[in-house]
Order: sequence, then structure tokens, then C-alpha cells
Amino acid sequence: MSRPDYRARIARLNPALNAFVDLTNEPSRDGLAWAAKSNIAVSGLPLTAGCEAYRERIAVSDAPVIERIRNSGGSVLGTVNMHEGALGATTDNEAYGRTLNPWSADLTPGGSSGGSGAAVAAGVCDVALGTDTMGSVRIPAAYCGVQGHKPTTGLVPDEGVVPLSTTLDHVGPLARDVATLWRAMHVLADWGEVVPLEPAQFDGLRIGVWDGAGAVDLTPAVEQGFTRIISELKALGAKTATFQPPIYDYSRSRRAGLLISEVEGAKEHHVTATGPRPDGLSDTFYSLLHWGARQSDEKVQAAYDHITDVKDAASAVWDTFDFIIAPTAPQEAFAFTEDVPANQADFTAWADFARLPATAIYSGLSQDGRPLSVQVIGPEGEDRETLRVAVALESVFGRPSLPPGFDW
Amino acid sequence: MSRPDYRARIARLNPALNAFVDLTNEPSRDGLAWAAKSNIAVSGLPLTAGCEAYRERIAVSDAPVIERIRNSGGSVLGTVNMHEGALGATTDNEAYGRTLNPWSADLTPGGSSGGSGAAVAAGVCDVALGTDTMGSVRIPAAYCGVQGHKPTTGLVPDEGVVPLSTTLDHVGPLARDVATLWRAMHVLADWGEVVPLEPAQFDGLRIGVWDGAGAVDLTPAVEQGFTRIISELKALGAKTATFQPPIYDYSRSRRAGLLISEVEGAKEHHVTATGPRPDGLSDTFYSLLHWGARQSDEKVQAAYDHITDVKDAASAVWDTFDFIIAPTAPQEAFAFTEDVPANQADFTAWADFARLPATAIYSGLSQDGRPLSVQVIGPEGEDRETLRVAVALESVFGRPSLPPGFDW
Repeated sequence: MSRPDYRARIARLNPALNAFVDLTNEPSRDGLAWAAKSNIAVSGLPLTAGCEAYRERIAVSDAPVIERIRNSGGSVLGTVNMHEGALGATTDNEAYGRTLNPWSADLTPGGSSGGSGAAVAAGVCDVALGTDTMGSVRIPAAYCGVQGHKPTTGLVPDEGVVPLSTTLDHVGPLARDVATLWRAMHVLADWGEVVPLEPAQFDGLRIGVWDGAGAVDLTPAVEQGFTRIISELKALGAKTATFQPPIYDYSRSRRAGLLISEVEGAKEHHVTATGPRPDGLSDTFYSLLHWGARQSDEKVQAAYDHITDVKDAASAVWDTFDFIIAPTAPQEAFAFTEDVPANQADFTAWADFARLPATAIYSGLSQDGRPLSVQVIGPEGEDRETLRVAVALESVFGRPSLPPGFDW
Repeated sequence: MSRPDYRARIARLNPALNAFVDLTNEPSRDGLAWAAKSNIAVSGLPLTAGCEAYRERIAVSDAPVIERIRNSGGSVLGTVNMHEGALGATTDNEAYGRTLNPWSADLTPGGSSGGSGAAVAAGVCDVALGTDTMGSVRIPAAYCGVQGHKPTTGLVPDEGVVPLSTTLDHVGPLARDVATLWRAMHVLADWGEVVPLEPAQFDGLRIGVWDGAGAVDLTPAVEQGFTRIISELKALGAKTATFQPPIYDYSRSRRAGLLISEVEGAKEHHVTATGPRPDGLSDTFYSLLHWGARQSDEKVQAAYDHITDVKDAASAVWDTFDFIIAPTAPQEAFAFTEDVPANQADFTAWADFARLPATAIYSGLSQDGRPLSVQVIGPEGEDRETLRVAVALESVFGRPSLPPGFDW
């Protein structure tokens, strides 16, 4: 295969895009060309986690996922921008700048893995690593119009990754097609030799349709695209029925996930209820962590208990359904100047709480040219089967093209 | 698989669409549900070839392709409208009415197999038979946003089909996805048991890029879509180079193909230079055939010689290229009120002259919602490999959705 000259593309496109923040100088190799979110240790590069506080912290060794990449014959082009501390979904970073959405410079690429989504969408790497806590791989995949896989929690090693929430975080890949996600998962999860990716057959498959049922406001474009795929799945023989995750409650669950992130993030970043404020954290990030540090043990325990209840209840879902299909986000990418929608992660956080594999798939462009996305969620440990459904969905929607101005 | 209830959809959608002109009452069966262009003999149904002249001509037996459909377990829902006598590309038929393009009621579905394209696009059958003389399968496939395969000439039996041009005509299928074209070709060409359709790998494939090089005016949307796929093929490792069919000359070749069609059509429809005008042919159709009947033997022979030269020269193409990629038509579907573009068949007729397999593939919608299409053309007899390239292209672009208002 004649590989794109990614170094040349980075030199040409990254100054405006601001996806990469630090570059290696390693030669390109025969395997995939990767980008790592800047909370993942790449030996010799700053390990910032998007915080000014760690600008000078240089990783002295590779995270195990980076070792696996090198062992597979892949190369690491560099690290990409992220929302500060992985807590937020715009990747408008005070310290490292704003990463643009390649589809339109006024739109956020999403987050927290916004640099990963933008780099893949712009075609400046084959695959980018993100981390997902409540949707941080899939939301930028959706907003940037690429494919993203959040693995079963625990399947991919998370050592050498600066955590936001040790309970919820985990590493996952973003790429422009599911075949590349498949190759990437073989590397990250150490699946051995890459076997062919056979698309799932929808005939007879029991699909739970999670549309939010009035509790989550979908934009008209998201609703229309989602309705289309459900009717196509029916036509292809899938047995569809309405689905709602058990126990999971949008606003209560969201607050529980955020509280756990803030409490665990406070520990990581040395923020305490009464101690001095550490240097190099933005006011917004600090105040979120500080709020977490001030909450009562009872309240925090209730959040953990809720997440555990959601996880425990999820196993019964698979008695009724083989897979769940949902919008990835309730809206398309929004402008940096707009308020951040509170419901961004309402369709993504369930899979994090329940430790389930979930793949976000590009599902076309809205009339105004913003990417749309659906996700497939599978049973715990069934990452391969989930990706087989994903590639079947991809062949319905087609693979994303490069955005205008980013042609090869 | 839960099959669409095509009879119910036809009852609901066909009165406005006017794709089907006659219906069988046979029960649905386990195989594919087919529609036949109305120049193909379906026992018991009128065999009109789109002419008023043959309104009362009832087929007394099935054409061999229809026999093959029945032997495969398929059902024939009925016959669909076409441009009169298969000579023209709007399917605005004086005798049987205007077939609408499901994407917009003011747009032609193309022709001459316009009813076939409209029926497939609207989801009122699985697969429709068309006939291709200079592009009559692929142009309506392109305008209606579906997939269409023009087989290697001679591969599919053409007995029981009312000819326009016995030299150039042949039968081919249209469907909403390449997997269905693949199944359909197994039936039509008697390929035996359906084997899995493995997508072609573009890595290392030698692709000739036929863009008309200034000789054919592409609309901006067609040009943009075509440029996209070529750059994606390069990124996937294809070795691309500019291609121009040898001997083939757009205006001269077009006139040769039309002359042969008019001369042979005149014989079929009993139009002679000096004899009486047969009843039941429109003024336009009659005058075209009459013009053909009046041309000198030398002029007609020169047209045949030119077509033969084009065919003979084509075999050398495959020393340099594995496949050719071209736009299917130079423009999107046009309005019934617009002038018919003279260059409609400039990218399609070469494969007819050279007897080559060619598959038209949906390549997305223009900004104003009209389907776009590219075609892959392969060596004579390499229909399977051509369809393997087609399904790989399909996975890049995605399968067409049903047009607004035609949901399942």
C-alpha cells in the first residue's frame, strides 16, 4: 500500500488544526501510524494530560499500549491534544490551544479525546488512541465523523495512562474505518494474528433500539439518521424492540459519573477540600475537582453504588437482545461559541458504567455538513462481535470522506 | 429475513411513481422479488417494449431470463415502464405515462430502463431487469441512486427480449446493493450456487481513471464526487493513471451507436425508408427509426466498422489496467422540463461497444439531494471480479437509503 506521507500532512495541516501537540521523530514503519492522546506515556514526549501543570513532565518509558504498538510494527507519530485532564468535551484547552473540528473551524471536535478525533478525521494518522470515561472516545468520533471503539473495560491495559477516573477510564482507538479499528484492537488487546473481519448478518439479530424515548432531546438530523438505520435494520431482517438501560437514569447517572470522575480526578491532581491549590490547573478544572473533594463520603459512596447497580443490572439485557443500537450523541458537533449541551454523554456513559464494548459509527452528514453517528453496544467481552456489527453498519452508511480541504 | 411486503408497497406507492405498468398475481416466494422491464417476455403480461403499438401483445411464454428467475425460487412482481422502444433516456412515455424519479418528482429517472431504476430506488422490488444498449441499465441506476450491472455481452440470454439493437442490447440487473446484484447475476448467468462476495483489495490494483479530460463536461457535483473516490483509491494503495478508451471518440462513437440502434430498431418495428408508417409509434420514435432506415449502406457499414474497431482496440487496455473507473453519467438526474443532455451516454457506451462488464455504484448525494454514481468497467468475461471491485466501492460510499417518503 502506498502510505500517505503523514509527516508531510502534519507539517501542512496541523498548524491550523492543532491536533498534534508533540511529535516523535521516529521513522515510519510498515504497520499502522498512530497518534496517542497526551495522557498516554510515550517515552521522550511530555505527558501532560492536557494540563499546564505537567508541561515539563517527560515520559521516561512507554505505556504498555505504546509498547504493544511498537511490537506490532506500528509507529507513533506523536501526542494529540485533549480536554484538560480529560474532564470536558470541547478540547478548547487553555494551555495547549483549541483543536479545530476538520469539518468546520467553528465547531468543537468534541472531547475529551478531541485531538484524537480531529487527527483521524483530517487524515494525519491511521489511528489515534483516546480514553473513554463517560464517552470521551465516542463523542469526538461522532463529532469528527470517524469510527471509534470503546473496548470492554479491562481488555486494554491502562497502565502508563494519566487517569481522570481509575474506576471508569479506559483506552480505545479511533480510525477512519472499522477494518482499521479491528487491526488496532488486535494490537491493543493482544489478540494475536489479525483474522478477517466478517460483517455480522442482521437477519434474525435481536436489536434493542435506544432512542431516549423523549427523555433525551435529539436534534432533527440525529433523529432522522437514527430512524433511517432502524428501518433499514428491520428490512435486513433484524428483530428490533425498544430498549431502555435498566436502573440507568440520565440526570442521576450523569451526576454519579461526574462525581466519581471529580473525586478520583482530585486525588490524581492533588486537589483537596482544604489544602493549597496546585499550580497549573485552570480555574474551571480546579473548581470541578475541588467540588469533588468537598463532597461527603456518603454522597460519593451513593454514586459508586449507583454505578455498580447499573453495571449489575446490565447483564440481564442480553437475555433479550444481542446488541443495542443508539445515537452516539444527541446532537451534531456544536460551535465553540455555544453553550456545552448537558446531555452530550447521555447515550455513551451507560457502556462505561456497565463496562461494555461500544463502537461509534459515522452515519452520514447532516444537511449543513456536520457528521452524524450511531453506536452499537455489545455484551461484556464481545468486542469482536460488536466490531462485526459495526462493520456491517459501516457498509450501510459508507466510510467518511476526508473533510473539504483535507484531501489526500 | 422479514421480507418487505412489496405488493402492499406497490399498491401504496406505484400510483404516483408509475414504475410498474403490469402486475402478475403470483404469490411471493423465498427467493428475490423481481421486476422485468416491459421489453422482456413474462408469460401472460403485455410485452409492449414501451410502445403503444404492442399494448395488446401478451407474452405466451417466459423469456429464458424469467425462466431462470423462477427456477431460482424468485418471484416476478410485474413489468416496469421504459423509454419507448428503449431508444431514449427519460422514461417520459406517451403511451404508458411518465415514471418519476423517487428522489424528486420533477426529475427523470433516466432511461431507457427508467422504470427499473425507479422501482428499485423506491423499494418496491428487490431487483429489476433492465437492458443496456448504450447505457440503459447504468444511467437510470445513476439517476435513481441504485446499483446496476451491465454484464459482459452474451453472458445473459437475450431471447424473449424485444430488441432495439440486436448488436448492442443485453439484459442486466439493478438493485439497492451489490450483494443483491451478485445474487441476481448468479441467477441470470446461471453461475450455480451463490458463493460469498469477497470485496476486492485496492492495494496494488492498476486503475485507469477515465474523467473525460475536458471532452465531456462534468457538473461540479459529479466532478467533486469522482475526484474524491480517485484520491481514496490512491490512499488505499491503488495504482492510478489517466485512461482514455482507444479509438473511442465521444461524438463520432455516439453517432455510430445511435445509428446502429436506429437501423436495427427500424427493422424490429417495421419502419422502412419508403413504406407506410406503422401504427402506434410516437412521432419522435418513428422519426428516429425512419432516419435510420434512410441512411446509406456505406454509412451504416462505417458505423459497424467503428464499433468493431473500438471493441478490437479494447483488449489492449488490460495490459495496462486491471479495471477502469469513470463517472457513470456526466450529470445528475435532470428535470423533465430541461433539454436532454446529448452527452448522457458518453461514459457508458464504450462498455457496450467493447462488450465489457460494467457496474454503476451509488456514490452519495449532491448538495441538492440528487444521487451521484461512478462505474467500474472490467475485462470481458470478468463480471465476478468487476462486482468484487463494485462491492469494495460500495463500502466506501455506503448503500443508498430509500428516498424521503419511501421509508419501509
